[in-house]
Amino acid sequence: MNGKFIVIEGLEGAGKSTAINAVVATLKAFQVDDIVRTREPGGTVLAEKMRALVKEEHAGEQLQDMTELLLMYAARVQLVENVIKPALLKGQWVVGDRHDLSSQAYQGGGRQIDAATMANLKRTTLGEFKPDLTLYLDIDPRVGLERARGRGDLDRIEKMDIGFFERTRERYQALAAQDSSVVTIDAEQGIDAVAHDIQVALTHWFSAQ
Amino acid sequence: MNGKFIVIEGLEGAGKSTAINAVVATLKAFQVDDIVRTREPGGTVLAEKMRALVKEEHAGEQLQDMTELLLMYAARVQLVENVIKPALLKGQWVVGDRHDLSSQAYQGGGRQIDAATMANLKRTTLGEFKPDLTLYLDIDPRVGLERARGRGDLDRIEKMDIGFFERTRERYQALAAQDSSVVTIDAEQGIDAVAHDIQVALTHWFSAQ
Repeated sequence: MNGKFIVIEGLEGAGKSTAINAVVATLKAFQVDDIVRTREPGGTVLAEKMRALVKEEHAGEQLQDMTELLLMYAARVQLVENVIKPALLKGQWVVGDRHDLSSQAYQGGGRQIDAATMANLKRTTLGEFKPDLTLYLDIDPRVGLERARGRGDLDRIEKMDIGFFERTRERYQALAAQDSSVVTIDAEQGIDAVAHDIQVALTHWFSAQ
Repeated sequence: MNGKFIVIEGLEGAGKSTAINAVVATLKAFQVDDIVRTREPGGTVLAEKMRALVKEEHAGEQLQDMTELLLMYAARVQLVENVIKPALLKGQWVVGDRHDLSSQAYQGGGRQIDAATMANLKRTTLGEFKPDLTLYLDIDPRVGLERARGRGDLDRIEKMDIGFFERTRERYQALAAQDSSVVTIDAEQGIDAVAHDIQVALTHWFSAQ
């Protein structure tokens, strides 16, 4: 039997790491033990090099929004074809820290790249491939960024203005509302409440499989 | 007045460097002195890092054909937006060592990525932007690779089998035949004859401007 691909999505400071731990713990309670963790952009040696190009500050050279988008998809294709699909075929479950919804939200919403471009690139590179379940951690960007700043330095994208993150959140919310495979979790609650909601959502989804 | 964008294309060992020198010499004879040279993939600090990802051997990790294609376009967008367009707007002429026709030939022809994907990606990333003139150096890949091998080590792409380069040449020839802005030069001649043909082609094109 093929494995399943579960993705955690959300803005900076939404608590993705804690959520991923809650997902893995819940899966183990369901006797799903063979779990591969991924993160995007990145997750392979080459994809991590593309991640570095996207995340770093580049003195004196502007990274074009379209270049950023193409690098995100270059890294994603590399991860999907070399890691995620082979794992699923072996029956492993994959728990991903971000996937395509991040590009839709950050580059489509935040950077305002047009819908036709976004749809074209997704279809061209991924075809029909998509996560079985996405848990979207919804949080006010002001709250999330405050948490993220408490952790230390922000990268090139995390330094964008608040309007960028508001547009990103709006796109997340809009896409979550129209895709039944995306479950929204209130990430402004305390860590324990978020973990509990994730356990409930995952248990509900699991029992429907 | 805007500058013009002239591109040299062709297989490994076709003599692109010699041809570029001939183009620059001819342009200077026409009092075009403010010339920017570019190469693809590459030509900016960031694009050169993408070039390295495409050219290097990657121990233990296969670079997916689609990843290669996306990296080529990521580097191209970066070069076009940050270097080529600004130069043309300032009235400079740009002489490019490869541009989009290389992707059409190598990834579309050589790697056999489907036509819809190729067309989609080109339109999405470049829109209507294209060279004013392309000089395509046509050569039998066996002859060209023999020359290239004489120069030293081959990179990851240059090590492909002969069928790959034959498909690449066929795509080059087909696209050159259907685009009046592409002039085919017989690159199996000696260096002097190639340089002469380039001078004639460029002079002919120049006088028609």
